[in-house]
Amino acid sequence: MVELTRRAYFCAGHRYWRDDWTAEKNRAVFGACAHEHGHGHNYTLDVTVAGTIDPVTGMVVNLTELDRVIQERVVERLDHRNLNADVPELKGRIPTTEVVAGFIWDCLNGAVTGGELIRVRVYESDDLWAECARRPNG
Amino acid sequence: MVELTRRAYFCAGHRYWRDDWTAEKNRAVFGACAHEHGHGHNYTLDVTVAGTIDPVTGMVVNLTELDRVIQERVVERLDHRNLNADVPELKGRIPTTEVVAGFIWDCLNGAVTGGELIRVRVYESDDLWAECARRPNG
Amino acid sequence: MVELTRRAYFCAGHRYWRDDWTAEKNRAVFGACAHEHGHGHNYTLDVTVAGTIDPVTGMVVNLTELDRVIQERVVERLDHRNLNADVPELKGRIPTTEVVAGFIWDCLNGAVTGGELIRVRVYESDDLWAECARRPNG
Amino acid sequence: MVELTRRAYFCAGHRYWRDDWTAEKNRAVFGACAHEHGHGHNYTLDVTVAGTIDPVTGMVVNLTELDRVIQERVVERLDHRNLNADVPELKGRIPTTEVVAGFIWDCLNGAVTGGELIRVRVYESDDLWAECARRPNG
Amino acid sequence: MVELTRRAYFCAGHRYWRDDWTAEKNRAVFGACAHEHGHGHNYTLDVTVAGTIDPVTGMVVNLTELDRVIQERVVERLDHRNLNADVPELKGRIPTTEVVAGFIWDCLNGAVTGGELIRVRVYESDDLWAECARRPNG
Amino acid sequence: MVELTRRAYFCAGHRYWRDDWTAEKNRAVFGACAHEHGHGHNYTLDVTVAGTIDPVTGMVVNLTELDRVIQERVVERLDHRNLNADVPELKGRIPTTEVVAGFIWDCLNGAVTGGELIRVRVYESDDLWAECARRPNG
Repeated sequence: MVELTRRAYFCAGHRYWRDDWTAEKNRAVFGACAHEHGHGHNYTLDVTVAGTIDPVTGMVVNLTELDRVIQERVVERLDHRNLNADVPELKGRIPTTEVVAGFIWDCLNGAVTGGELIRVRVYESDDLWAECARRPNG
Repeated sequence: MVELTRRAYFCAGHRYWRDDWTAEKNRAVFGACAHEHGHGHNYTLDVTVAGTIDPVTGMVVNLTELDRVIQERVVERLDHRNLNADVPELKGRIPTTEVVAGFIWDCLNGAVTGGELIRVRVYESDDLWAECARRPNG
Repeated sequence: MVELTRRAYFCAGHRYWRDDWTAEKNRAVFGACAHEHGHGHNYTLDVTVAGTIDPVTGMVVNLTELDRVIQERVVERLDHRNLNADVPELKGRIPTTEVVAGFIWDCLNGAVTGGELIRVRVYESDDLWAECARRPNG
Repeated sequence: MVELTRRAYFCAGHRYWRDDWTAEKNRAVFGACAHEHGHGHNYTLDVTVAGTIDPVTGMVVNLTELDRVIQERVVERLDHRNLNADVPELKGRIPTTEVVAGFIWDCLNGAVTGGELIRVRVYESDDLWAECARRPNG
Repeated sequence: MVELTRRAYFCAGHRYWRDDWTAEKNRAVFGACAHEHGHGHNYTLDVTVAGTIDPVTGMVVNLTELDRVIQERVVERLDHRNLNADVPELKGRIPTTEVVAGFIWDCLNGAVTGGELIRVRVYESDDLWAECARRPNG
Repeated sequence: MVELTRRAYFCAGHRYWRDDWTAEKNRAVFGACAHEHGHGHNYTLDVTVAGTIDPVTGMVVNLTELDRVIQERVVERLDHRNLNADVPELKGRIPTTEVVAGFIWDCLNGAVTGGELIRVRVYESDDLWAECARRPNG
């Protein structure tokens, strides 16, 4: 069993805000992330697949195919977008790094052929990241 | 003459859009940066000061003071903000990396005591940055 | 279950030396780390917490609270300090990267509320790091 | 139990090509990696060892010894070499990142004294890496 | 006047070897770079353009257009290629970092519209790079 | 004219303290850098040489020779050392980043053969660096 990780990038805007809270409570819990007009980040995404190496191609998964899945299912949906406004699945949720990681897991789960998706890591910045994982089979 | 550079960080949201253009023209010129709800970046800022070393302190400028100036004049104004909506000087302008660099130059110019401000570099991402500079005196 | 990691930084001085060894043995085992007046590093610290996402806040742990714990229990004790002289728990021990990681684990263990501390990684430099971890519950 | 990771570097050339395939099939599966004269990369290697800390030295493994093993068994064999032509064990195989990681695992397995080798990670670039690992004993 | 820098990437193989020298002399001068089958690197390219900001677009140069020029004139010619064998202009030359930087300067010079090309920097690795520059006009 | 830059690394300890000042004044001016037992950093050093490319070797300077000069004149003197105690030229001076940069400039000036030393940059951390430079001749 070998793990292969592909890194991808997207930038997006977001805001932390709950309509059912007062402005004071939003600011107390979410701090600067509650500012009215939002802000944004350069996100980094690491997608890890586990599997056995095909002796003919030397590959766990075909990288071109893995890139296509990441591009179509994640980057095209999130890049240069506003996470609160442009992503239906995130509507009404607080788009924290851990929520975004879970969302990307759901986007990719079942879509990678050949290897098994075992980990999604999302960096919101150099000093904050979240990870969803499962123990590889076998 | 020695140059001293201090790096600082802020994240912000922005959008490239001209109201006096059609949506088609905005998309043709600004691409994904024209998306309606905006997006954002982790910006990195390098501020360079030139001067002579004070033989008593070994310093070109006092770093605590330089940090305070950068914090008050730039980071507090831009961090976790939307460049289009929250920064009066950028209202109606396209907040490209080069425009942001020029704005930060104006924020800092004349405010650094001891050394002379000679360069401001702003990274919008790892693969794009803009720089305003002047030749040091002397 | 999601993992959230927060990165922090501190710089510190240290020296590898055992008083019960000759200078020759110290130099043979510890190399340049045995130099009399010590040296130092920029350390990077990654603290990982596992938990479930609170559906109201979108958070595994409150980041402001996690930052406070890391700052008070680790950074304030180690930053700009000498690991041999200024940290009582490290007195008489060799402050290798793995010893520092274990010390930081002990500092943080039980102090993080909400999520469960599952991993502490300490980088002494870009090419050397140590990690203490436990398998997350559940 | 603590994990200690040492990073090393090597650069190498390679090409993806199967003689038993047509040029068209090679290009379809391997893309630009099939170009006739090959290309190359700056590889980064992370070697992770697990063990208990020796209370006398503060070390899981002696770093000088670990460096020597990595240097002799991996870097001297791969650095500034062509993976297809210069490494007998890789002859006739496609030297993908995952194949190189497996090869390095075999080079190091059993050669690290003191701690237990538990992970080898190989970066072919900033956005692609492969990892071989085993669960630490105990 | 503002400077804008765009970073791009390519990987390539190369070898340092002069046919009019003995193998001994090649090895003495070029060291491991003289190995028979060559090796390779992940190159990083920074292209800097100077100009004035267009008040309508906020841009020194149109980034899409700059990307196209870098892609067509440099990346497509060098990426996944062997610098000795695949680039006619480098035939018979030693493809050092400084030679590659000069070659890329020649590829781009005169091709960037709007701004003025003032600097090309090429990184062969994290610890070695070469730069060709001219003083901006005006 | 081409510039070639070589990066090197060293780690060192230091302390900012003036005996002719009170403890209060030392702490007011130097902050945490005044702590009694000192601390340290991982320093990064960039040495830039300008010259013309030798058409026979493709080199501005021979890299092996440049590495030797940097190693002998800088790294061997500073690496794993205490800047206050182990470097005679820095005795009694405050070893700030800008002072260290000036010291390294003096160590290297006149020692690089072939090309001309035009710049020395020293990073004390990712967010602070100092640079000594002169305009290249010709």
